[in-house]
Amino acid sequence: MSVPHRPPIDQLDSKHSPLMVFSGQSNRPLAQAICDNLGIPLGRSKSEKFTNDNIIVHYEESLREGDIFIVQSFSTPVSDAIMELLLMIDAAKSASAGRVTAVIPYYSYARSDKKDSPRISIAGRLVADILQEAGADRVLTMTLHSPQVHGFFKVPVDHLSADIVLSQHFKKCVPDAHDGVVLAPDAGSIKRASQIARRLDSGLAMIDKERLSDTEVRPRALIGDVEGKTVFIIDDEISTAGSLVETVNIARSMGAKDVYVAVTHGVYTGPAIQRIAGLDVTQVASCNTVDVSQEKIEAANGKLAVLDVAPLFANAILNIHTGASVSTLFT
Amino acid sequence: MSVPHRPPIDQLDSKHSPLMVFSGQSNRPLAQAICDNLGIPLGRSKSEKFTNDNIIVHYEESLREGDIFIVQSFSTPVSDAIMELLLMIDAAKSASAGRVTAVIPYYSYARSDKKDSPRISIAGRLVADILQEAGADRVLTMTLHSPQVHGFFKVPVDHLSADIVLSQHFKKCVPDAHDGVVLAPDAGSIKRASQIARRLDSGLAMIDKERLSDTEVRPRALIGDVEGKTVFIIDDEISTAGSLVETVNIARSMGAKDVYVAVTHGVYTGPAIQRIAGLDVTQVASCNTVDVSQEKIEAANGKLAVLDVAPLFANAILNIHTGASVSTLFT
Amino acid sequence: MSVPHRPPIDQLDSKHSPLMVFSGQSNRPLAQAICDNLGIPLGRSKSEKFTNDNIIVHYEESLREGDIFIVQSFSTPVSDAIMELLLMIDAAKSASAGRVTAVIPYYSYARSDKKDSPRISIAGRLVADILQEAGADRVLTMTLHSPQVHGFFKVPVDHLSADIVLSQHFKKCVPDAHDGVVLAPDAGSIKRASQIARRLDSGLAMIDKERLSDTEVRPRALIGDVEGKTVFIIDDEISTAGSLVETVNIARSMGAKDVYVAVTHGVYTGPAIQRIAGLDVTQVASCNTVDVSQEKIEAANGKLAVLDVAPLFANAILNIHTGASVSTLFT
Amino acid sequence: MSVPHRPPIDQLDSKHSPLMVFSGQSNRPLAQAICDNLGIPLGRSKSEKFTNDNIIVHYEESLREGDIFIVQSFSTPVSDAIMELLLMIDAAKSASAGRVTAVIPYYSYARSDKKDSPRISIAGRLVADILQEAGADRVLTMTLHSPQVHGFFKVPVDHLSADIVLSQHFKKCVPDAHDGVVLAPDAGSIKRASQIARRLDSGLAMIDKERLSDTEVRPRALIGDVEGKTVFIIDDEISTAGSLVETVNIARSMGAKDVYVAVTHGVYTGPAIQRIAGLDVTQVASCNTVDVSQEKIEAANGKLAVLDVAPLFANAILNIHTGASVSTLFT
Amino acid sequence: MSVPHRPPIDQLDSKHSPLMVFSGQSNRPLAQAICDNLGIPLGRSKSEKFTNDNIIVHYEESLREGDIFIVQSFSTPVSDAIMELLLMIDAAKSASAGRVTAVIPYYSYARSDKKDSPRISIAGRLVADILQEAGADRVLTMTLHSPQVHGFFKVPVDHLSADIVLSQHFKKCVPDAHDGVVLAPDAGSIKRASQIARRLDSGLAMIDKERLSDTEVRPRALIGDVEGKTVFIIDDEISTAGSLVETVNIARSMGAKDVYVAVTHGVYTGPAIQRIAGLDVTQVASCNTVDVSQEKIEAANGKLAVLDVAPLFANAILNIHTGASVSTLFT
Amino acid sequence: MSVPHRPPIDQLDSKHSPLMVFSGQSNRPLAQAICDNLGIPLGRSKSEKFTNDNIIVHYEESLREGDIFIVQSFSTPVSDAIMELLLMIDAAKSASAGRVTAVIPYYSYARSDKKDSPRISIAGRLVADILQEAGADRVLTMTLHSPQVHGFFKVPVDHLSADIVLSQHFKKCVPDAHDGVVLAPDAGSIKRASQIARRLDSGLAMIDKERLSDTEVRPRALIGDVEGKTVFIIDDEISTAGSLVETVNIARSMGAKDVYVAVTHGVYTGPAIQRIAGLDVTQVASCNTVDVSQEKIEAANGKLAVLDVAPLFANAILNIHTGASVSTLFT
Repeated sequence: MSVPHRPPIDQLDSKHSPLMVFSGQSNRPLAQAICDNLGIPLGRSKSEKFTNDNIIVHYEESLREGDIFIVQSFSTPVSDAIMELLLMIDAAKSASAGRVTAVIPYYSYARSDKKDSPRISIAGRLVADILQEAGADRVLTMTLHSPQVHGFFKVPVDHLSADIVLSQHFKKCVPDAHDGVVLAPDAGSIKRASQIARRLDSGLAMIDKERLSDTEVRPRALIGDVEGKTVFIIDDEISTAGSLVETVNIARSMGAKDVYVAVTHGVYTGPAIQRIAGLDVTQVASCNTVDVSQEKIEAANGKLAVLDVAPLFANAILNIHTGASVSTLFT
Repeated sequence: MSVPHRPPIDQLDSKHSPLMVFSGQSNRPLAQAICDNLGIPLGRSKSEKFTNDNIIVHYEESLREGDIFIVQSFSTPVSDAIMELLLMIDAAKSASAGRVTAVIPYYSYARSDKKDSPRISIAGRLVADILQEAGADRVLTMTLHSPQVHGFFKVPVDHLSADIVLSQHFKKCVPDAHDGVVLAPDAGSIKRASQIARRLDSGLAMIDKERLSDTEVRPRALIGDVEGKTVFIIDDEISTAGSLVETVNIARSMGAKDVYVAVTHGVYTGPAIQRIAGLDVTQVASCNTVDVSQEKIEAANGKLAVLDVAPLFANAILNIHTGASVSTLFT
Repeated sequence: MSVPHRPPIDQLDSKHSPLMVFSGQSNRPLAQAICDNLGIPLGRSKSEKFTNDNIIVHYEESLREGDIFIVQSFSTPVSDAIMELLLMIDAAKSASAGRVTAVIPYYSYARSDKKDSPRISIAGRLVADILQEAGADRVLTMTLHSPQVHGFFKVPVDHLSADIVLSQHFKKCVPDAHDGVVLAPDAGSIKRASQIARRLDSGLAMIDKERLSDTEVRPRALIGDVEGKTVFIIDDEISTAGSLVETVNIARSMGAKDVYVAVTHGVYTGPAIQRIAGLDVTQVASCNTVDVSQEKIEAANGKLAVLDVAPLFANAILNIHTGASVSTLFT
Repeated sequence: MSVPHRPPIDQLDSKHSPLMVFSGQSNRPLAQAICDNLGIPLGRSKSEKFTNDNIIVHYEESLREGDIFIVQSFSTPVSDAIMELLLMIDAAKSASAGRVTAVIPYYSYARSDKKDSPRISIAGRLVADILQEAGADRVLTMTLHSPQVHGFFKVPVDHLSADIVLSQHFKKCVPDAHDGVVLAPDAGSIKRASQIARRLDSGLAMIDKERLSDTEVRPRALIGDVEGKTVFIIDDEISTAGSLVETVNIARSMGAKDVYVAVTHGVYTGPAIQRIAGLDVTQVASCNTVDVSQEKIEAANGKLAVLDVAPLFANAILNIHTGASVSTLFT
Repeated sequence: MSVPHRPPIDQLDSKHSPLMVFSGQSNRPLAQAICDNLGIPLGRSKSEKFTNDNIIVHYEESLREGDIFIVQSFSTPVSDAIMELLLMIDAAKSASAGRVTAVIPYYSYARSDKKDSPRISIAGRLVADILQEAGADRVLTMTLHSPQVHGFFKVPVDHLSADIVLSQHFKKCVPDAHDGVVLAPDAGSIKRASQIARRLDSGLAMIDKERLSDTEVRPRALIGDVEGKTVFIIDDEISTAGSLVETVNIARSMGAKDVYVAVTHGVYTGPAIQRIAGLDVTQVASCNTVDVSQEKIEAANGKLAVLDVAPLFANAILNIHTGASVSTLFT
Repeated sequence: MSVPHRPPIDQLDSKHSPLMVFSGQSNRPLAQAICDNLGIPLGRSKSEKFTNDNIIVHYEESLREGDIFIVQSFSTPVSDAIMELLLMIDAAKSASAGRVTAVIPYYSYARSDKKDSPRISIAGRLVADILQEAGADRVLTMTLHSPQVHGFFKVPVDHLSADIVLSQHFKKCVPDAHDGVVLAPDAGSIKRASQIARRLDSGLAMIDKERLSDTEVRPRALIGDVEGKTVFIIDDEISTAGSLVETVNIARSMGAKDVYVAVTHGVYTGPAIQRIAGLDVTQVASCNTVDVSQEKIEAANGKLAVLDVAPLFANAILNIHTGASVSTLFT
C-alpha cells in the first residue's frame, strides 16, 4: 500500500500550511518512512539532555503557521518519550505553529484505562490531559488497548486500526485461513479477535483467565474449539511474551495444528525475543509502531515479521492536512 | 444487606456537613429508600415545567456548606433527567453547597463510549463534561457499560458494582450454580460474565455477533458449551429485550436446561415486559437503579424480580460523607 | 426580504470553508428555508433514539475544516432539543469541523436569566456554559428575553432582532399606526415596547404587575392611556396565551379600539390556539423561530399570522461566513 | 438595623476560619463600619504605588486558611479600584487564604451589561471573568444595574437589595407615601420602581426616553400621572445628576407636588453636588456603598442624606461565614 | 532602520487577514509611527469615560476575521491602561476578530515577578492571566524586567530586545566604546549589562546593593573597576531617576571619566526630568516605548535622547502577520 | 535544627486531616527523614513498572479527605521522577484526597525558565502546568534556579531557601568568613551570592561569561577582587562539576587563598565526584535535596559534605498543615 498519486505537497490546498513532520527519539525510522511516503523531508529538530538529565528540544527551522505533525511512540524509555513529546508540543505552540498533531503510533498508557484496583491512576486519561495541556490540537494513533480510550481526549482523535494489515497478513500466510480459528488470549481481546475472525471468515475461541493478584493471572479454560485447526492468536501488544508463551501452550495442548501470531505493537522487552525464538509457532508478526532493531529480528530465528504501517500513517496525515475524510481511507 | 450500626448521621464527624440527599424526578423511590437506609429525610426540592417546557428546580431548604447528594437515573425521558440534574447541580452550587455529588445509579449514555462509526459523538464523555461544567464535585454510579467510562470524568468517581448482588441472587436461586454456565450475550459483556463465572465457580460461554449495519446485528456462533446446563445470562441492561430473546433462543437451541437472567439496569421499554412474560426462562432479575412500576412487574407474569441496591448506595454515601474507604465496602 | 445578489456560495472567499448548514429536529422547516435563501442544500445528518431513549446523532457527510452552522430551536420537547444540539456540536468538533456556530432562533432558557427566588439556577447561563463546553465556537440567536443574556456567553454571539419585522408588519396592517399605542404587558417588556413605539412613532403604555407567588401574578394598573386607540401588544413570546388574554382584557376594559399582537416566538402550548381563536383581537403575529404546524394556524380561526425570518438568518450566516459585518445588516 | 445578638465571632462554628475583613482604598469607611457591626478589627493591609504607578498590595498579617472578605467599591478612580482588588484577591489566594469573597458594594461596570452598539465589550462580564481568574471564590454585592448581571459570574453571588432601606426611608419621610407616585426615570428602572411602588402601596409612572446617539438621550413622554402627587424618583445610581435634573424638571412640569429622590449608589461626580444643591426637590438620599465626603454633604445644602448599609453587609458576611441562609435575611 | 521593501500589505499572503493596528490611549504616537512604517492607517477606535469613571471602548470599523494588533504601554495612569487594553481585547474578540495580539511595548508589572516579601501578588503573572482571560491570542513586548516573565504567559510571546538599539547608540556616541566599562546598577541588571559589554567589547562592573526594607536600598560596593574609564550605565527603566542619581554618583566617586546612560523604558515620573537636567552625565537615552512629551525633552536641558523602536515593532508585526520568523529579525 | 515541641500530629487542629506524607522513588531517604522529624510514619505506597516500561503507582492505605504531601525530587532519571509524581498526584486526587501538596526539593526544570534561543520550550512553565493539570493543590520546593519560576505556578507555592543553611555552614567552617569573598560563577548566580555575602558580611565578586553556542560558554573576566582571600563559591546546583572546576581554576589563578563551595542541589552526575576529589578546594557542600549515595561521598575523598534540610521541610509541612505562617519560619 502506498500513498496514491497526487500533486506535490506544497501545491496542496490547505488552510494549515505548510505541512511539516518532526520526530522525537522513540521511533525515527517510522517517522522517516512516513515522510518518504509523503515525499517530504523529515523536519529538522534536535533533542539533548542537559547534564542534570533534563531534556531540551530545539526546532532548527521556523514553524510559524505550519501544520505540524510530531511522531513519537511511547516505547522504552517511556517517561522520556512522553516528556520529549510534551516539550516538542509546547515548543511548537510557543513558536507559533498553526496546528500541532501528536502522532502516537503506540500509546502504551492506554492499558491503564480503568480502575481495577483502588487508589491507582487511570493513567491513560492523565496522559491525555497533559498532552492537551501542553497544547496538542489533535492526536493520531493506532490500536488503542480499548476503543474507549479515544474518549479520554477532548481534542479530535484519528484512531487507525491495524486490523486490515493483520488480517491481510494472515490471509497471505495461510490461503485457507477461513478453516482456522482466531484465538483471543483473554476477554479483553475478544472484540478484536471477533473482528479479525469475520475478516477471515474463520472460527473464534477465547481463553478465560482469572486474576489472582495484581501480577498473577491464571487461565481457567479455553472457550471454543481449536483441535486440529490452524490457530491465529491476535492481541494488541507483546512485551515479555510471557502470556504469549502461555497462550501458545494452551492452544497446543488443546490440539492446535499450526499457530500464527499477529499483534499491532511489538514491544519485545526482556526475554521476549529469546522466548519467541524458541516458541512452537510458525510466525510472530507485528507492526512497526514500535521500532524493532535488526539485531532483534535476527535473534528471533526467522520467527519475527515486521509489517509496515507507514503508508497508513502517511495517508492519514495527508487527509488531515487537506481536510479530507480519514474514516473513508480504511474501510 | 443494611447499613451497619452507627451513631446518628448528625453526630457524625465530617468536614462536609450536613449530609443532605435530594432527588430528581427519575427515580424517587430509590432516593427515598437510600434515605431510609441512612435514617434521614429526603431533602425538600421541587421541579416544575414552565409552559414553554423549560424545567425549573427550586430547593426548599438551605444548602449552605452542606454535603449534597443528588440522586438521578438517566431513564426515560432521558434528556429531561439530564437537564434536571444539571439544573439541580448548578442551583446547589450557586446556593453555596459545600460539595455536590451526582448519584447516577444508571448512567445510560455510558453505552456511547467509543467511536464505532465516523462523525458521531462519544456521548458518554460529553455528558461527563457537562456534569462537571455544571459543578459536580464527585460522581457515584453503578455498573457503567464499560469500566473505561470511569476515565471520562476528571472528578473522583465511585463506581459500584452489582456483581455481588447478582451472583448472590443466582446462588440463592440455584444452589448448584457451579454446575451451570454463565453466558455472555456478546463480546462486550464477556468480562462481566467471566467475573460472575468465577464467583459462581461455573463455566463460561459467549455468543459471537456480527454487526451488519448501525441497527442490525447477527449472531455468528456460540463459543463454549451450554448443552444440558443451567445457563446464567448476564448483561448490564435490558431495554426492549429484543437481543435477550435472541440470546435465550440460541441458548435453548444449543440445549440449555434452565435459563436465568440477571442484569444491573432493567430499563424495560417498548415490548420488553410482554416479551419477558412469554420468554422461556425461569426468571429475569434486575436492580432498582431504574424505577420499575408495580404494574410492569405484575404484567411480567411472575418472571420479573427486582433486587434492591439502596443499601449499597446508602453505605457508599455514608463513607463518602465521613471520608471512609468506599473500595473496602464491596470486597 | 431576500438575500442580495452574490456569487455562488462555493466561490465565496472565506477562511472557513465550505459553508454547511445542518438541522436538529426542532425546526427543520426553518433550517430548510434558510438553506433555500442561501441556495445550498441542507446538510445530511440523522438523529435517532436508542431503545433506552438515548439520542444518537450521525453526520452523513464529511465536515472536515468546514464552517458548520447547526439550526436548533429550544422548543418542545426542550430537553431533547438541547441534548441533540450538544451532541451535534460535539460530534462536529470531533469530526474536525473548522468552526461550529450554534444557530438558536429561540433560546427559551433565556427567561431564566436572574435569581428572583433563592436556590434556583440561572439556567440561561448554565445552558450557555454547556453549549460552550460541548464546543460551540459562536452563537447566532434572535430576541433573547433580555439583552443581558448575550453576556452569559464567552464566545461571540450575533443577536438578531425581530423588531424591524414586527414593526413593518404593524405598519402594513395599520397604515396610521402612529396614532396607536404600543402596550407592554409588563415591566420586563417595556424596553422592547418603547423601541417599537419609536419605530411606529406611536404612544406607549404598560401594565404594572405584582408577583404574588412563583406562579401567580396580578395586574396592579395600566400606566398610560389606551382609550379609543389602536393598541399594539408586543412581547418576546407567547406560550399558553394566558397572560395575553389578560392583557387584551385589560386593554379592552380601558377602552382600546383595535388590538394587534406581535411577538417574536410563537410557542403556542396547551390552550394557546383555542384562546387565540376566541380572543378579541384583530390578529396575532409571530415569527417562524418556532415551527407552527399548519393545523394550528387553521385552528386559530384566521387570527394567526406567521412572519418569515429565514432571510434574516440567511443573511447573518452569510456575513459570518464571509467575515462581513452583521451589525450593518439590520439597521 | 444592627447585627442581632450572637456569640463572639471567634467562637462561631465555621468551616472557614478565622473570619477576616480587609479593605481596598475605595471605601474604607464602609469597611470599617462593617467591622464595627461585626465586632472585629479591620484586617491590616497596605497598598502603595511604585514610582512607575504600579500598585503593590501587602497583607500585614497571616491569612492561612482564613475566610477572607475584601471590601472594594468600583468608584473613582475605578481602574485603580479594580486593579487593587485583583491584586488583593491574588495575593490572598497565593498566601493560602481558605476562601476569598470579593465584597463589591458598588459594581459600576454592571451598567455595561449588553451590546447596545456594535464592537463594544460587555464589560460587566469581562470584569466578572477577571475577578474569577484572579481567584475570587464568591462575590457579595448590592443593587446590580440589572439583576441579570448576577449570571455573569460562575462563582456564587449574594446580591443584596437596598429596596427595603430606600422604601423605609421614603415612608419615614412621607407618612402618607401610599398617596404618592413612584417615578422611573427610564424603562431600565421600571422594575425597581414597580417593586418600590408595591412596598409603598403607591402609584407608578415612567419617563419614556429615546436614544439619539451614544451620548444623547431625549425624553419622549411621561407615561402615567403625577399631577398634584408626591413623587418618589428611584434609580440605581446618580453620577453627574444630569439626567436627574431632567427627570425632576419633567415631573415638576407635569404638576408634581413634592419630589423625593433615592438611589442605591451616590457617585456624585462633576457638577452633581452643585446641581443637587439647586434642585427643586425635598431630599436626595443614597446609600454609603460609595464613600461621600463630609464636604460634599455640606455643599449639597442640606439636600443630601446618606443611608447606612453596613449592617446589611455585616449580616450577610456573618451568614456567609457561618453557612446560614442569606436570602432569609432580607425578606 | 526601516521596514524592508515589500509588496503592499493588502497583497500579502496571510491566513489572518486583514492586518489592522489599533491603539489605546497610552502611547498613540508610537502606534502611529508603527503604522507609518507599515504603510497602513491606524485603525479607528474610540475610548471614553462614562461619568462614573468607567471606560468604554468602541471600534469604528469592522474587525471580522481580521489580524488585530492593539498597541498599549503600561504607563501612567497604569490601571487605566490595563483596563482599556482588556476592554479592547474583549471587544475585538466578541466582534469576531480572527486573532488578537496585545502589543505592550512597556509591560511595567513585569517588575513584580517574584515573591520577595510574604503575602504579595506576583502581579506580572496576574496581569498575564487576565490578558489571556480577556482573549489575547499573542503578546508582543520589549525588554521585560526579567526574561522569565515570558514564561508567565501561556500564549505565544514575541519578546523584542532593545539591546541592539542601545549598543548601536553607545557606539555612535563613543567611537572607542571598547575602552569603556558597562556598569550594572544592581545585580538584577548584570545579565543585560554583560550582553551589552560583549556587543561593545568593553569591560563590566556592578554595584552591589543591600535591601534594608521594602522601600530602602543601600549600595554596599562597586564590584569591578571604572577609574578613568567611560562608563555606560544600562538598565531596563528609569522612573524618578533616584537610583540613577545614586549610580552616577558612585561611578563618579570611583573616578569614572564620562558617563552615558541608556535604558529601554524612559518612564520619567516625579522629579526625574529635573534630576536628569542636573545630572553629571553626557546623555541619557531611552526608547519611545513610553511616550515622552516634547516639553519634558526640552526641560532635560539637552541631556535626553529618545531612540525610535517603531521600525522594530513594525517588522515584528509584519512577520507575525505573514508567519515569517521573528527571531531571525534581530540577530 | 529540629521541629519544636508540639502536641502529637494527630491531635493537631487542622481543616485538612489527617496529615500523610508519601514518597516517590527519587529521594526516599529525605522523605523518611522528614517523617522522622514530624514523628509520623512514611505513608505506604508502591511504584512498579509494567513490562512495557509504564509506571503504575498504588497507594496501600486510604487517603480520603487526607492532607497529602508527596515528596519527589527531579533527579536522574528525571522523566521517570516527573511521570511518577504526576501519577501519584492523579491517583491521590481520584482517591478523594482532601488536598495534595507536591513537595519537590529539587525542581530541576526550573533552569529552563526563559527563551534564550528560538523555538525551545520554557520547560519550567510546562512542568508547572502539567503538575497542576494532574491535580496538585500546592507546591513546596527549595531554591528555584530563579525566583521568578515561582510565578510559573497558579497554585500557592512555598519556596524555601537554603541560604541560612549554606551561610551557617560557611561560618562554622571559616570563623573569619567576613574577611572572605563570595564568588558568583556567573551573572545568573550574582543575586544569591550577594545575599550570602550580606549574611557573611563579606566581599563579592563575579565571573563574567560569554555564551558562544548552545553548549559552549567562555569566561570573559573576573569582576571584583579575590587575591589572598578565602573564596566562597555559591551556586544553585552542581551536575558534572565542569563549570565548577573552571570557576575554581579562575579563582586560583587570580590568587584566591582557600576555596569553599556550597550549593543547594548536589546532583553529581558523570565525572562530578572524580573531579571534586581532585579539586583544589577545602570542601564542597550541598543539601540532601538530591539523594547522594554513601559510595559517592566516600569516593570524593573527604571533600564532600551533605547538609540536612529535612527539618526545614518538616517545619514547612507542619505549618502548611496547621495553617501557620511559613514565611515567619525562615527569617
